Amino acid sequence: MKLFFFKNTLTSTRNLTLTLILSLTLLSCSSNELINLRVAKDRVKDYYESGKYDEELNKIYNEAKAQIEKIKIKDNSAAIFDVDDTALSNYEISKRLDYGYDFQIIQDWVMSAKLPAIKQTLEFYNYLKIKGVKLIFLTGRNIEEYDATYRNLIEQGYTDFDTLIVRSEQDRKLGAAQFKSQKRKELIQNGYEIIICVGDQWTDLEGDYTGIKVKLPNYLYETK
Amino acid sequence: MKLFFFKNTLTSTRNLTLTLILSLTLLSCSSNELINLRVAKDRVKDYYESGKYDEELNKIYNEAKAQIEKIKIKDNSAAIFDVDDTALSNYEISKRLDYGYDFQIIQDWVMSAKLPAIKQTLEFYNYLKIKGVKLIFLTGRNIEEYDATYRNLIEQGYTDFDTLIVRSEQDRKLGAAQFKSQKRKELIQNGYEIIICVGDQWTDLEGDYTGIKVKLPNYLYETK
Repeated sequence: MKLFFFKNTLTSTRNLTLTLILSLTLLSCSSNELINLRVAKDRVKDYYESGKYDEELNKIYNEAKAQIEKIKIKDNSAAIFDVDDTALSNYEISKRLDYGYDFQIIQDWVMSAKLPAIKQTLEFYNYLKIKGVKLIFLTGRNIEEYDATYRNLIEQGYTDFDTLIVRSEQDRKLGAAQFKSQKRKELIQNGYEIIICVGDQWTDLEGDYTGIKVKLPNYLYETK
Repeated sequence: MKLFFFKNTLTSTRNLTLTLILSLTLLSCSSNELINLRVAKDRVKDYYESGKYDEELNKIYNEAKAQIEKIKIKDNSAAIFDVDDTALSNYEISKRLDYGYDFQIIQDWVMSAKLPAIKQTLEFYNYLKIKGVKLIFLTGRNIEEYDATYRNLIEQGYTDFDTLIVRSEQDRKLGAAQFKSQKRKELIQNGYEIIICVGDQWTDLEGDYTGIKVKLPNYLYETK
């Protein structure tokens, strides 16, 4: 009896110790690990350039197609696409700035209208187009960037969309999620039925009238 | 005997399992965790701005002083200081570029000669100066940046140094560590005895003739 008690105490002490070590390990590494930005950037570079990003996009769009196949498409069925890092890629300029940001350089890049299409998004866009889904771009870009954005989309193969919605002067005070959900509400009021919403930021997918939510990966930045 | 064997097997199986879990946990989180760069940048920002960076510098220089106190300073005793993020801080421009890099912007920043001193380094520099240690700056910056660097150091309070060594045209093909250790060798040949070497990169401290190695933290970048 005494021996049994002693053995149990030993076991539970050991288990407690191991649980503690495990908890501390998990806590220390996943909650708030400080990493040299060179290391963090190189990991992100590897993710985008080694094929992992492409693989993830393929998987996400395959799942989205499986969901779309279950839906009966109507005349007013619409899909909402975000622009930056959803339809068009900013990876090149981000890498050129060593994954940093400079207002003027990014502004010039946007106005150049030379952003490449994200090919999996374009493929999914065309898949929806063939099904007769109405295609709408909804972006946090400003009205001054409308022409460059419109031209960039068309030149990259995003043709035949119904509308491109950008931020007007009075929309600038709104947060990204608030602006986008308000615009979706207006689209609903105009008769559209949104069946799917595609974006790389959670702010693209928050709020009502999104339909199927398709979240693309983005390890470069986060929009609030 | 049989029971004993069985008990041991159980224990070792459990230990093996726990070791495996622990190893996998450590491996998965610390070796290659992919983090959104916004998150990685915010952690680095917090490190630099919350006082943790200052705290670490204070601790490092206190330890360095304790080591210096054990040394008999001679007429030819010399200390080597790196410039960028050792004597002068690039944190401000790094933050302005959202922790990225643009050649022209960084070049303009260097040429502005307005980099602030890292106050703990300046304090340690003055401590060595009072002790009669010869003070030498050794930087990977180029010859075109010599004047701006010289002026910046003086204006920030780094006065009375013996020499400022930058990369000449023919040094440009050398890696940072190779260039710096070669220059240290030349200093030795000129009669200096290097008692301490201070830098934020391991390349500042690799090779011979370093004396005491003082490695400052740098989570912004790594120099190869």
